[in-house]
Amino acid sequence: MNNAPLSPTPRPVCVLGLGLIGGSLVRDLREAGRPVFGWNRSTATVEAATADGVDASTDLVATLHRAAAQDALLVLGVPVPALPTLLEAVAAHAPDCGLTDVVSVKGDVLETVTAHGLAGRYVGGHPMAGTADSGWDATTVGLFRDAVWVVTHDNAQDDPAWVDVWRRVVEMAETTGAVVVPARTAAHDSAVARISHLPHVVAEALSITADRGGALALSLAATSFRDGTRVAGTAPHLVQAMCENNRDALVTALDETLALLTSARDALTDPDDGIGTMAHDGHDARLRYEAFAGRTRETPANRPLIRVQPGAPGWLDQLHYAETLGARIDVF
Amino acid sequence: MNNAPLSPTPRPVCVLGLGLIGGSLVRDLREAGRPVFGWNRSTATVEAATADGVDASTDLVATLHRAAAQDALLVLGVPVPALPTLLEAVAAHAPDCGLTDVVSVKGDVLETVTAHGLAGRYVGGHPMAGTADSGWDATTVGLFRDAVWVVTHDNAQDDPAWVDVWRRVVEMAETTGAVVVPARTAAHDSAVARISHLPHVVAEALSITADRGGALALSLAATSFRDGTRVAGTAPHLVQAMCENNRDALVTALDETLALLTSARDALTDPDDGIGTMAHDGHDARLRYEAFAGRTRETPANRPLIRVQPGAPGWLDQLHYAETLGARIDVF
Repeated sequence: MNNAPLSPTPRPVCVLGLGLIGGSLVRDLREAGRPVFGWNRSTATVEAATADGVDASTDLVATLHRAAAQDALLVLGVPVPALPTLLEAVAAHAPDCGLTDVVSVKGDVLETVTAHGLAGRYVGGHPMAGTADSGWDATTVGLFRDAVWVVTHDNAQDDPAWVDVWRRVVEMAETTGAVVVPARTAAHDSAVARISHLPHVVAEALSITADRGGALALSLAATSFRDGTRVAGTAPHLVQAMCENNRDALVTALDETLALLTSARDALTDPDDGIGTMAHDGHDARLRYEAFAGRTRETPANRPLIRVQPGAPGWLDQLHYAETLGARIDVF
Repeated sequence: MNNAPLSPTPRPVCVLGLGLIGGSLVRDLREAGRPVFGWNRSTATVEAATADGVDASTDLVATLHRAAAQDALLVLGVPVPALPTLLEAVAAHAPDCGLTDVVSVKGDVLETVTAHGLAGRYVGGHPMAGTADSGWDATTVGLFRDAVWVVTHDNAQDDPAWVDVWRRVVEMAETTGAVVVPARTAAHDSAVARISHLPHVVAEALSITADRGGALALSLAATSFRDGTRVAGTAPHLVQAMCENNRDALVTALDETLALLTSARDALTDPDDGIGTMAHDGHDARLRYEAFAGRTRETPANRPLIRVQPGAPGWLDQLHYAETLGARIDVF
């Protein structure tokens, strides 16, 4: 492990919440020799992290004072319902620290951060990685390698201090081996509703419908069913939390899917009609996905690349352009 | 390869249609040393099969005369639209041969077979195996190993000749290494609508909905989307054929899914409600599937087993019992 200080002396990262995502981030930053410390509410988690060599504490106020003194970048790594209490403490004890988060849906977080008067130092983040497991025991080095890490910029400020936070967030994500893709909050939340939350809801419905066919149906199920319902194996409270935190965007996507399925249903009841159009459109859409995501999943370097100079004239336009392409960025 | 004749001299199998399923069946039977010959409409296919050592012909009438003379078991391996013409020839040239098929949906086949006066020697079959590829070039030894091969018995006859056909079909399926699961036509068609055709339709709708989110959505898609839409990569004409051949059962299943998704949608628009119930029910259903199908997929011997003596008193009740359990059968 390379613990040699970088030049100039790097400012630390302070991760608030040491679950799967926050904890794995701490491990990656340590592995890269970056200064990092963390806080978690649970004594058991902090003890486990400490035993693994992590600088962690259960004392939130002391942790925030330390973050403020060292100009740390704060990373919010707690579930959405725990955010208001945590942000209250941040506003009281470390209001000038740069702030980011590793929570999935970005709308609620931005709203809550804004409500606590902290938007001027906030850059949203969403590392798109995870496993079915959770908690410190599930944390691992390399969880984010080649994963997309969405970084938002809705609340971009002319203030160089905000641009500095943005740059630090991108650099932190890159340190983990993630691929940074910029997006605005609404675009991000709509996209994840379509490609993650909707598939979860649909998988639940598919599972229930098959189950009503009894043992025969379950026993005949092959790979189309197994893959199509895999995410119904996710813990229900996690599905509920991710979907309910993104209600508006999910309802929009669900309405589109309902309209498509209703139209397929009607076409199937008409002997002169059928699902040819939908089968073709769905196939085309899947091919577009494979052309983009399949290629870039194997080789992240295949993803379109947009070069960005933070704070330079037109740099936000570059970020918007990258958003429409799903491009990664190269910061210089 | 063991080409030694079994005792008594085994009657041959005659496979009509040498696509992926029919052709792979021919390969398996040859590999097991069973007498088998085949027919295909296309000269190119017959030439390719012959080059691979298969006894094949493009002459349907001659093939059927040979089948009649040798008391062959006829296997229908053509797409549903080609069935009426083929069955007309069977009725004209080999009406007393035992008859089965390897077509997916069983309702249409039974109806067409009955319309051609051939139900008295017919036992339906559905080997649940396949790949995205088709045609002779895709055929392979071992395609059906450990796969479920559904065998139907709606039109069971007291006639010992029908019982003999049923026994021959089961034995042929077992020769390929498949697991025989008995089911009646309606139960089979309802089950495959729920676990195969519905997942295909839903995957098309999911793909289209994500695609409408543009490059950003496609670029953020991870495993939940990839797995949930995998079968949208199936050739559209195959999806169309399988779904449109099972319209009634598919519409019933689709209506149930639409009701579930509509109720989830409404719950998401109510701030006091949410998708907790659906997430729990879907999770429970997936666990039941994993408990049954997951276990039996890895180790087919884990599937419940019902012993059946064809033609013995109560044997059809045993088949119905097996159907409700999704059980395999052991014929003695």
